[in-house]
Parts: sequence; structure tokens; C-alpha cells
Amino acid sequence: MTAIQLAIAGVGKIVYDQHAPAIAGNTDFKLVATASRNHSIDGVTAYKSMAEMLASGTAIDAISLCMPPQYRYEAAREAIRAGKHVFLEKPPGATLSEVESLRDLAAEQGVTLFASWHSRHAPAVQVVKRHLQQHAPRQVKVIWREDVRHWHPDQEWIWQPGGLGVFDPGINALSIVTEILPQAMFLKQAALEVPSNRQTPIAARLAFTDALGTDVQADFDWRQTGGQTWDIIIETGSTHVHLKKGGHELWIDGKQSELPVEGEYPSLYQHFCQLIRKHASDVDVAPLRHVADAFMLGEHIVTDAFV
Amino acid sequence: MTAIQLAIAGVGKIVYDQHAPAIAGNTDFKLVATASRNHSIDGVTAYKSMAEMLASGTAIDAISLCMPPQYRYEAAREAIRAGKHVFLEKPPGATLSEVESLRDLAAEQGVTLFASWHSRHAPAVQVVKRHLQQHAPRQVKVIWREDVRHWHPDQEWIWQPGGLGVFDPGINALSIVTEILPQAMFLKQAALEVPSNRQTPIAARLAFTDALGTDVQADFDWRQTGGQTWDIIIETGSTHVHLKKGGHELWIDGKQSELPVEGEYPSLYQHFCQLIRKHASDVDVAPLRHVADAFMLGEHIVTDAFV
Repeated sequence: MTAIQLAIAGVGKIVYDQHAPAIAGNTDFKLVATASRNHSIDGVTAYKSMAEMLASGTAIDAISLCMPPQYRYEAAREAIRAGKHVFLEKPPGATLSEVESLRDLAAEQGVTLFASWHSRHAPAVQVVKRHLQQHAPRQVKVIWREDVRHWHPDQEWIWQPGGLGVFDPGINALSIVTEILPQAMFLKQAALEVPSNRQTPIAARLAFTDALGTDVQADFDWRQTGGQTWDIIIETGSTHVHLKKGGHELWIDGKQSELPVEGEYPSLYQHFCQLIRKHASDVDVAPLRHVADAFMLGEHIVTDAFV
Repeated sequence: MTAIQLAIAGVGKIVYDQHAPAIAGNTDFKLVATASRNHSIDGVTAYKSMAEMLASGTAIDAISLCMPPQYRYEAAREAIRAGKHVFLEKPPGATLSEVESLRDLAAEQGVTLFASWHSRHAPAVQVVKRHLQQHAPRQVKVIWREDVRHWHPDQEWIWQPGGLGVFDPGINALSIVTEILPQAMFLKQAALEVPSNRQTPIAARLAFTDALGTDVQADFDWRQTGGQTWDIIIETGSTHVHLKKGGHELWIDGKQSELPVEGEYPSLYQHFCQLIRKHASDVDVAPLRHVADAFMLGEHIVTDAFV
């Protein structure tokens, strides 16, 4: 089959770290262009904007959108209306309603829309999902503690309205939990700690349940220095399940499980290719819906200025 | 046909003002019981709780849930699991995800779930909806300004997390706008004014658009004294449309339109009856989704303490 001619719009850290290597390792895709005000990829034709790229006449089948969520709708709309398949880096938008609008537009235009959740492609996730279909979860603890200064140096957009704050990493945990739990959960209580000089939370504590009364607690914190923690611990009554390192390590009853070596972004691009070949879309808003619920329901606690 | 045996759970101001008179005027329903800690309705069997009412053996087909949104899920779940049709006063829940859960539960149990939006039943709403299908809107202004002290005396739950604040009335405007606009809209920008001693906003300014670039501005304020304003003004390019009094008065190009005299709650109960007879549900979360989006995307501005 001919390779899918791919472009990237919004070139930054996640593109250099993840997208570019994943695309380079996948013969189904050929990276033909980028659109970014300030950045480019060596050896790939660089345009300054989506409009310039679309007007250039370069043959493009699909576009990965990797700009901050506040700017994603306009870019996605331009791409979809130009008949391109669209890969949305997580989160798929700044609001739930704009993602609904993009889903409708993509259906109208007959193109693939893929709202990606990279953490769902971590190697332990499908293994644990199958385990929980056999062993019903009773209690789930999510501990997602990292150092914002290390992961988001000079990224002001994360602190601006719509930037999500600690939910930017936290939504990765929520994307895993919503994938593995057999029942849909919903928020009961939330506390959001917001620095006095910022608009988005630096920490959040969330308590969810589901129709069976499962107890799901999440602890998101961006103030952790030293070792970083991306853990999900599940008690099922008969087993103790521990996902570590964001789903890259799995321990069941204290014994480490063998996992496939598949990487997240290579797996995402395989899935995107399959969706395009099948003329299908994949747009699950559940993780973003939980974040919106947390902002709506959460107690707002002002905490120390972030400097 | 036999009248539907109806109960009300959560008896307060809205029940005395609206539900009880609407039910009394509708022969499809017979009000047989209430469940409420502190209140009752003259001549109707009163229970202290949903559990007590369900255990009593009183024949009940359907239950209207009128408690604050933070308590609605548990009550709805109990009612649905007992095989009752459920009418949810607006908003249908404290979170979007719990409403999804209720929708699934109702489908499993084969009962009707009706997430009601009373303002959509104001007499001008369907008239304007048809008008906008002929005359595309370009600009929409929503002005929803009322006096919280008058409408919510001693209601602490509106100021607590999940109580929605000024979105409690504002969601009525959003329920009308989402019903009448031909295209789905989404939020671009929002500012929420939150009293320094409260958890929910006392005022909000919202800017929406849609896939056609329609400009929708909303101004919600709970600090208005004297005359109250519930207006929606729409410029279509060829006509000027003005809904006043929350959709109870309609002016097109400066001329007042004749409207049916139908009331909101009588119309809601007619619709609930039709849904039950058709074995259907009606759960549109769009207004609540816009509110959740506003909390997620909105700039948080601390304002004067509310005393």
C-alpha cells in the first residue's frame, strides 16, 4: 500500500520526543511537511502555518495536531475541511463541545478523526483490562506525582485558562482508568489546589465511584521533586494489581508480569493507520469529561504562588 | 388510560411553585406520595426518604426528582433500580459522567429517563427555532440578570461545590440557545466572578461560536436588583429577534408576536407522559456540558464577598 502522506502542525517537545521517532519507524506513514511558527524537523519541508501548508499544494493525506489544546479547534477545522484525516494529540480540545463539533465535521467530510490518548497504549493497559473483566475491582488508587518544572519548562499555556494545569498529566491517568475499569465511573468529590498567581491547578484530589460503588481515589500533584510517581493500585478482592511507571510495569500479587515491548506512540500511529484504512474514527471524550466535571464540581483551594 | 401514579422526591420551592400545580392540572398523572426530610404537600402521603417511600408498598410508576443536583444521582439510581420512570429537575446531575451513568441504567432497566429543561418549554422557543431555520443567526446576545437574594433565599447549596452558582439560572438560557440555534456551539472564552467567601460564580461572561462562526455572547449576573432581565437578542442579517422574559415574550423586527399560552411545567409533564407511553427517554446534556466547559476553560476572578 502507498504510504500515508503525513504532516505535523504544532512542533514542540512532544513532537521531537515522541511523534517524529514513531513516524520514522512506521513505513505506513511518510512525513512530508510541518507547520509551526518557530520550529521545524530536519529534512522535512517547513511551513509557518496550517494555512500556508494547505495552500502550498504539497500532497498531504493526514495531519497530526500537536499545538496546545486552546488552539486545536481552529487547526482541526481547517484540516478536516481540507479533507485531511486528523490525529489529535491529547487532550482533543479545550472544551467538550468543540470536540463534539469536530466529530460532526469529520463525519460530514468523510475523514478519520482520532482523539488519541497515548497512555492507553502503554503495554500493561490491555493486560489489566482483561484481568479486571475476570476480577471485579473494589478499590482503585491513582497516584500521579511529577515535577512540573522538569516536564513543562517555560510552557505558560498550561497555567492559562484552558491549559488544564495538573490535569495535563492527570488526564493520562484518567485515560487509563476509564479504559481498564469494567464500569463507567463518575466524580463524587474533588479539591483543586490553584496557585494564587495562576489559573489552573497544581494539585487535585478526586473521589469517584461507579454504579457498583467501586471506590476510585486519584491524587495528582505537580510539586513532586526527585523520583516521579505514575502508579495505579487496584484491589479486586482476590488480587492486588499494581501498574507502575504509567502502565509500563505491571505487578500482580507482588509478582512482576512480562509485558509486550510495544511503545505508546508507535502503537498510536499503528491505530491511526488502521482507522484511516477502515474509514473509521475514534473519539472517546471520557477522560476530558472527567476533567470538566472536576472543574465544575471541585472545591477551589488557593495555594502558594508558583514561581 | 390509567393515570400514571407519580411521586415527588425533594420537596421545596420549585415543587410548590411549579410541579404541584402542573401535576394537579394534568389528568394523566395522580400524585400519590412525596419523599422529603422537612416538607410535604397537603393531602398527599408523605415519607421522610426515598428508601422509606419505596419500601412502603405504595403503588408508584414514576418519580420526579427535585432535590439539589449534588444529591440527585443516588436518588435517581434508587428510583431507576426500583423500576420507576424518572423525571429529573434541571440540571440533571452534578456531573456529566453521572448523567451518562443514569442514562445507561435507565436503558438497562427499561424505564423512561427524562432530563428536563423547563425553559425549553417557554412558548416562544419553538417559534424562534423555526424562524432561525429560515433566517441563519449571525450574532446572539444572552442577558440573564437576576437577584439571587430574591430567587434563592437561604439556599446554601447553590454556593457549594457542584451548586453551579449563577449557572443555576444561566443554564436555563443555555438550554434555550442550544434548542433554537441550527448549529452546535462551543465556548471560546469565559470569565467567572466568584465571591471571595463562596465556591461558585455570582457572575459569568461567556463567548461561544459554532462551525459557521456565529458570535454568541452571554452575560449572567446574580447581583441585579429591581427589574430582572432574561433576554436573548438575535441578529440574523434579515431579521432582529428579541426573546424577553425567558422566552415568554417574542418581538421580531420590533413587533410583538402572538404566542401560545402554554406554560413550562404543564408542557414538561405532557412531554414526560408521552415519553412514558412511548417507552422512550430524553436526556440531552448539552446545556450542562457548556457549563462544565465554562468551569474548565473560564478565567477565575475573585470578587466581593457575598453576605
